[in-house]
Amino acid sequence: MTILYHFQLCPFSRRIRLALEEYGFEYELRPQNPWERRQDFLALNPSGATPVMVEGGGVVGGVYALTEFVEESVNIKGRDGGLFPDAFHERAEVRRLIAWFDEKFSAEVSAHLVHEKVVRRYLAAKQGGGAPNTASVRAAIHNIKVHLDYIGYLVERRKWLGGDQFSHADLAAAAHLSCIDYLGDVPWGHNGAAREWYARVKSRPSFRPLLADRMAGMPPPEIYADLDF
Amino acid sequence: MTILYHFQLCPFSRRIRLALEEYGFEYELRPQNPWERRQDFLALNPSGATPVMVEGGGVVGGVYALTEFVEESVNIKGRDGGLFPDAFHERAEVRRLIAWFDEKFSAEVSAHLVHEKVVRRYLAAKQGGGAPNTASVRAAIHNIKVHLDYIGYLVERRKWLGGDQFSHADLAAAAHLSCIDYLGDVPWGHNGAAREWYARVKSRPSFRPLLADRMAGMPPPEIYADLDF
Repeated sequence: MTILYHFQLCPFSRRIRLALEEYGFEYELRPQNPWERRQDFLALNPSGATPVMVEGGGVVGGVYALTEFVEESVNIKGRDGGLFPDAFHERAEVRRLIAWFDEKFSAEVSAHLVHEKVVRRYLAAKQGGGAPNTASVRAAIHNIKVHLDYIGYLVERRKWLGGDQFSHADLAAAAHLSCIDYLGDVPWGHNGAAREWYARVKSRPSFRPLLADRMAGMPPPEIYADLDF
Repeated sequence: MTILYHFQLCPFSRRIRLALEEYGFEYELRPQNPWERRQDFLALNPSGATPVMVEGGGVVGGVYALTEFVEESVNIKGRDGGLFPDAFHERAEVRRLIAWFDEKFSAEVSAHLVHEKVVRRYLAAKQGGGAPNTASVRAAIHNIKVHLDYIGYLVERRKWLGGDQFSHADLAAAAHLSCIDYLGDVPWGHNGAAREWYARVKSRPSFRPLLADRMAGMPPPEIYADLDF
């Protein structure tokens, strides 16, 4: 049985869950709070980062290894219509955008909001736990608008973020945004084209498990699971 | 002609240069200082990150896209003995380690040292230029030891970092360490196994162009280019 260790509001875990759902993989989810740094989890991925997959007796640790592992697994199964385009330069564009969201969006928006609003609830005071730092939250929420505009710019020129084909780039952007949306912090009115693109991604069957997730004691706003938000 | 935009002390640029040399690609190097954020460079890679390749009329932006693009280009050329192993789980292990160095080593060591000791020389005071922050430098130099120990731990169990085969994992670790070595900050006496591994990587012909590089007005210590350091 394939096991995926994930944290519910980890954008990287969410992206891999979406990819597994898109490809129809069968797997079992196991929750893992990265800040707990459990020894048996560190034995699987020494960096302590989610997601991690245990599959076929082997371990695949981290979102980069998993993205490519899932893709390679699909290729040997001989499926058509993957989450990477066939042309090399188009694949490069999808990977450029994955890095944009996993590095830049994360550093400017999602890592701050998830840390301030979620992780700090679970940490002891001496580990940095406590109420959210309002300056950090305010800066992150301000930064979202630049990213919504970039998404809008792209989808006014292409059908999907990475090109004419739905791809890992869409999953990356939507995974990060869905975490922020759970916290009620995405100003969807800011960019209509970005909102319309997110509505298309959110309507896919692969998204349903994410929309059904609930963090204990932290319900999302009503629009989170609403396809007509 | 293939063009690679790079910054001399960018570990990501160095890793791609090493991969291109290992595979015998022909390319022209163009220097690019990321902090200048030149408009024509941002048109190639909107995040402003190095490295970027312009090849065959297409653009490949960022180290993730470039790693996989180079690998895919090699595969169609039908070469044997690549920088990724053939077995899927071994490839996943190499990618896990690439992420370890590009994310964790970067965040704990190389990004700080290159920023404090190099980039801040070139920035205006209002952009954060000035003398290195000694606390940040001291923390980064302390953190190197943990990473040298991890490298030593791995190569006492395997021939190379990612397994029995020389791979992108070795290039990633060596690219980051070579930037810090240029600054004279690697305590090579700390871990003999790690030092022996680096000597093996440093002796490869692919490393020679890096060892010949000089930043204007910032010569490296003598041991930097010495194969018997």
